[in-house]
Amino acid sequence: MKSLKVIAFDADDTLFINEPYFEETEKKFCGLMENYLSHQSLSQALFKHQIENLPLYGYGIKSYILSMIQTAIEVSDGTVSIKHIDKILELGKELLQKPIVLLEGVEQTLKALHSNYKLVVATKGDLKDQQRKLHDSGLGEYFHHIEVMADKKELNYNKLLKRLDIEPHEFFMIGNSLRSDVLPVLNIGGYACHVPFHTTWAHELIDHEIEHDNFYEIKKLNEIIPLLLP
Amino acid sequence: MKSLKVIAFDADDTLFINEPYFEETEKKFCGLMENYLSHQSLSQALFKHQIENLPLYGYGIKSYILSMIQTAIEVSDGTVSIKHIDKILELGKELLQKPIVLLEGVEQTLKALHSNYKLVVATKGDLKDQQRKLHDSGLGEYFHHIEVMADKKELNYNKLLKRLDIEPHEFFMIGNSLRSDVLPVLNIGGYACHVPFHTTWAHELIDHEIEHDNFYEIKKLNEIIPLLLP
Repeated sequence: MKSLKVIAFDADDTLFINEPYFEETEKKFCGLMENYLSHQSLSQALFKHQIENLPLYGYGIKSYILSMIQTAIEVSDGTVSIKHIDKILELGKELLQKPIVLLEGVEQTLKALHSNYKLVVATKGDLKDQQRKLHDSGLGEYFHHIEVMADKKELNYNKLLKRLDIEPHEFFMIGNSLRSDVLPVLNIGGYACHVPFHTTWAHELIDHEIEHDNFYEIKKLNEIIPLLLP
Repeated sequence: MKSLKVIAFDADDTLFINEPYFEETEKKFCGLMENYLSHQSLSQALFKHQIENLPLYGYGIKSYILSMIQTAIEVSDGTVSIKHIDKILELGKELLQKPIVLLEGVEQTLKALHSNYKLVVATKGDLKDQQRKLHDSGLGEYFHHIEVMADKKELNYNKLLKRLDIEPHEFFMIGNSLRSDVLPVLNIGGYACHVPFHTTWAHELIDHEIEHDNFYEIKKLNEIIPLLLP
């Protein structure tokens, strides 16, 4: 890995807490709608709409709010009250204002690495929301910039490398999703490191093990320091 | 302008039609809600919510859909029907799938310039939506990349220059909004060109003339070619 130039970090559940906030909101949404359907069936219906809406809405909280509204209308067969819709808008605005809680070892890691590499954030989601979170995190000074990606497939990573003007072997990606942060990066010839978070959105799960020369796995983010600063 | 390296183009109403689609959607929204309020008062209420929600939602169609829903609930004092909310979701999905109609001279201009400069798209709005539009426009091959910005203020342009690794005097921005595409770029020392579109969102208007050595004004995009390829 002597040729590395850019270290890219996923944001949500890699730098700071995210998925637990979505789970908390989903629980409130299911509570709101429990006269119509069980929590489990509601979650399934919401997930179905999220995935169906991905090509049109993309990732992020605004897409999630719109999918909650659509789900509420559909599972109630159009009988849900306007107060419920208003409450869903409110849940969405709450979710957009959650405090930023850094994960363990994050600041130590960025501090250690930022003089030796160009550090970037590579994340999906709403542009506005991700920039707000990074700003509120106080981590902005360590990063050259934040890259909000429409998706994290091979094509998107290739575009990212093109605009960074680097080759795959100069790129190292760190994140909590094997599906989004690791596999596509390995497939295009880059390096990738998995740092698991205790909870993962169903859409990000994969069903097989990864064996690859360019693949690393750590438990806490700061375990990457000795790998990158030998 | 001998030092120019990057020519940046606004997308909506500079490369392809946008604002007329929003106006068409707003007309349908006002028609849907005309039992509650006049078109004019509804438009005002919607604009108020859009501006209020900007810090939280940012720009783009998903923000617009959410603001329409909020407006419908508020102006009806919570008495609007669920069918109306469902219809608003549908209007939003329609708006996200409008055909891309290139403005006059766009392809000719990009073709002429792309061998001599790095061309980028610098636009606000939803990341997913803007990437979809650029893809569908068939213009992707001319651009080094697309830059979706959370806002178009001096701070955002300074960040853009930083990631492009260029100085302000190496940057030329072209767009239909004096407020977003021209003023902030001139203020940070770059070059800017105004190419007006026949209709402009109220939020983008300014109330004074611009006089500046680095400022250009043209009627059609292809009038920029002789300026940049002397």
